[in-house]
Amino acid sequence: MNDEKVQASIITIGDELMIGQVVDTNSAWIAQQLNIAGIWVRKRVSVGDNYDEMWRAVEQESIASKLILITGGLGPTADDITKPFLCDYFGTTLVIDEEVLKHVQDLFETVLRRPFIERNKKQAEVPAGCTVIHNSRGTAPGMLFERDGVIYVSMPGVPHEMKGMMEDLVLPLIKKKMVTGNIMHRTMLLAGIGESFLAEHIQLWEEALPQNFKLAYLPNQGLIRLRITGNGGDAEHLRASLNEQFDALKILVSEWLVIDEDISMPQLIGKMLNVRKKMLGTAESCTGGYLAHLFTREAGASDKFNGTVVSYSNEVKMNILGVRQETLNDAGAVSEETVTQMARGALKVLKADYIIATSGIMGPDGGSFAKPVGTVWVAVGNKDHLVTQEFHFRYDRMRNIEMSANSALNLLRKFMLQYDS
Amino acid sequence: MNDEKVQASIITIGDELMIGQVVDTNSAWIAQQLNIAGIWVRKRVSVGDNYDEMWRAVEQESIASKLILITGGLGPTADDITKPFLCDYFGTTLVIDEEVLKHVQDLFETVLRRPFIERNKKQAEVPAGCTVIHNSRGTAPGMLFERDGVIYVSMPGVPHEMKGMMEDLVLPLIKKKMVTGNIMHRTMLLAGIGESFLAEHIQLWEEALPQNFKLAYLPNQGLIRLRITGNGGDAEHLRASLNEQFDALKILVSEWLVIDEDISMPQLIGKMLNVRKKMLGTAESCTGGYLAHLFTREAGASDKFNGTVVSYSNEVKMNILGVRQETLNDAGAVSEETVTQMARGALKVLKADYIIATSGIMGPDGGSFAKPVGTVWVAVGNKDHLVTQEFHFRYDRMRNIEMSANSALNLLRKFMLQYDS
Repeated sequence: MNDEKVQASIITIGDELMIGQVVDTNSAWIAQQLNIAGIWVRKRVSVGDNYDEMWRAVEQESIASKLILITGGLGPTADDITKPFLCDYFGTTLVIDEEVLKHVQDLFETVLRRPFIERNKKQAEVPAGCTVIHNSRGTAPGMLFERDGVIYVSMPGVPHEMKGMMEDLVLPLIKKKMVTGNIMHRTMLLAGIGESFLAEHIQLWEEALPQNFKLAYLPNQGLIRLRITGNGGDAEHLRASLNEQFDALKILVSEWLVIDEDISMPQLIGKMLNVRKKMLGTAESCTGGYLAHLFTREAGASDKFNGTVVSYSNEVKMNILGVRQETLNDAGAVSEETVTQMARGALKVLKADYIIATSGIMGPDGGSFAKPVGTVWVAVGNKDHLVTQEFHFRYDRMRNIEMSANSALNLLRKFMLQYDS
Repeated sequence: MNDEKVQASIITIGDELMIGQVVDTNSAWIAQQLNIAGIWVRKRVSVGDNYDEMWRAVEQESIASKLILITGGLGPTADDITKPFLCDYFGTTLVIDEEVLKHVQDLFETVLRRPFIERNKKQAEVPAGCTVIHNSRGTAPGMLFERDGVIYVSMPGVPHEMKGMMEDLVLPLIKKKMVTGNIMHRTMLLAGIGESFLAEHIQLWEEALPQNFKLAYLPNQGLIRLRITGNGGDAEHLRASLNEQFDALKILVSEWLVIDEDISMPQLIGKMLNVRKKMLGTAESCTGGYLAHLFTREAGASDKFNGTVVSYSNEVKMNILGVRQETLNDAGAVSEETVTQMARGALKVLKADYIIATSGIMGPDGGSFAKPVGTVWVAVGNKDHLVTQEFHFRYDRMRNIEMSANSALNLLRKFMLQYDS
């Protein structure tokens, strides 16, 4: 597949990537944007702040890719060598760009309110002959080069600067310059089924997929996303066939289907709350505020989210949520009784319509024979009904927190469908 | 630098990486581990589920790297083609490994409690002649190949399975097989200074660094980590010179120095709390549980963290934290008065020794002329003293949440040093 697509490579630069001090989120974001634009990323490469590796990477990628997006190495400090490299690679020299210089000086004077020092002037240097790309969110400009039918774009590594530049200028420019074919995706979210069993279940359907369609399994913390990608042909025809395949698959997996869109579980719950005009609250012990964060990091959270009590200590469980001392003594903090009382108390103090309560042992310490690491109790409900469930996870702490959150959200989803559909 | 180091490449495989649906955290983690072991990662490459791209990537990397770590593409589903590729690349065929078969059957029967179906048997197939690497956390085994002095290791893409395999078996094996030189890092954390100004400030020192030392600037959400890397020579001598350079740098940047270790801000606050045997609580509006999550995702959080009230709605601010209605009416939810009352109320209901309270406008909506998006009020303190500060951030919502969290933590750090040192 993808033979007719524009092929692209993403190159990220920085020693911090080579020693793993920073997770590369730029590549994923850029790949998403290119994909939506109908450009296929065939390779992602990261190299250190090393002139020769940079040269080899750019040269190598230009053999098979028509578009090469580079991030990183544009700061004013000594470990940033991308600009000198670009000059040599494209046989040109650095010149001061007056517009960039003015922008950088303005930023320092009015926004950053820091002295503009000689070194900052370097930010305004660009290789002569490149197309300068304005950086509305920072000082380092982007640069675009064209040679032998290949487009090269160099951008800063700071994610929000790179994103602003891509959205405002680079993507529109690329779309205009490169003829792009049709590539379409549809994604659904499943819960409560393993990858192997699912694959077995839909094997015949998958084997019968037309050549220009492809299915991907994307398992993540107890959930599986299934994505069908189709390409080629005219847009209308492709969309119709994609929808046909997608609908057939939906029927096959209806038992485990959560939603037939590519949205996250918190986004889905948020939509369900908005439709019902209801507010959510959470009472979190083991998830420790992670559920609250999943909701509040989305814009518009105040329309559906009241608040949270993270009751990490037993005192908070008693003082704010009204969990009884004897329940904590007899059944323990990780028990059906405790999460039930946490949920009841939180509904009241948070004045929420729906509640999620969690209590569990996330590890690596704190487990016992009766309640090993990974034991989690969840309660969800409203003032009329509460539903509880015990879960058992394994492995590492962060994964247990994420699995707990996803399982709790799925339990609430089912509750809302059953009691308030 | 790094000419004498074992050079490694990391190759991650999966269409999900090419369309950006998943952020590649495996590469960063593997790079960290190799780095500590004294192996230099010279390149990270990601390709899709594509036989030819896989072949080209592995072939290309084997030219300059002696160690090639591959993750992904080992599941039982149809989009996983790594095993057939490995067979062809190393000229061998798939055979059932009886030990792996037994392990997979055991897992399905005792842990996963799902039917063991024919397709699961494929998990036990390995290329004949490879060294099989046991997967204690999942079904797909790892595989190690050696050819012409290059070691190739293929592991599953599921992060916790790959990590278990690396820690238990792959790293010890690699260390034994490969003569590795010395590579050492020391890192310090700074706050309250811009990258350019810092670079200017330490320029003379940096230019005088010996050839085998290198400085990296790692800016992140208002903080900057400075990392000195040294390599070559015998361990003792290298460590002494590294410490000498590090100490000189510390004196130069003492004004902005947070800590002379490579730990995160929440970890640092955690240590300071442990030393003082004090407990923290948070009252979060704009950070929405993110501060609580930063503490509770670390093991041992219950030793230093009592809990949180996420008061997203004004009702919760009043009901649980005792913020006065007239304060919310007159000064507004985002004000010095409100965060002060939130802090006082939370100290009481959470029975915490220290408190952080936050209230702000994270965007993209909700800003006004008087209080634009990015306006944040923070209060930190204990029962005797409270300190407040107003911050102004810009850009996107998640970045504002992270900047707020880091700024609040740094304010608490300074408070603890001043009032309880």
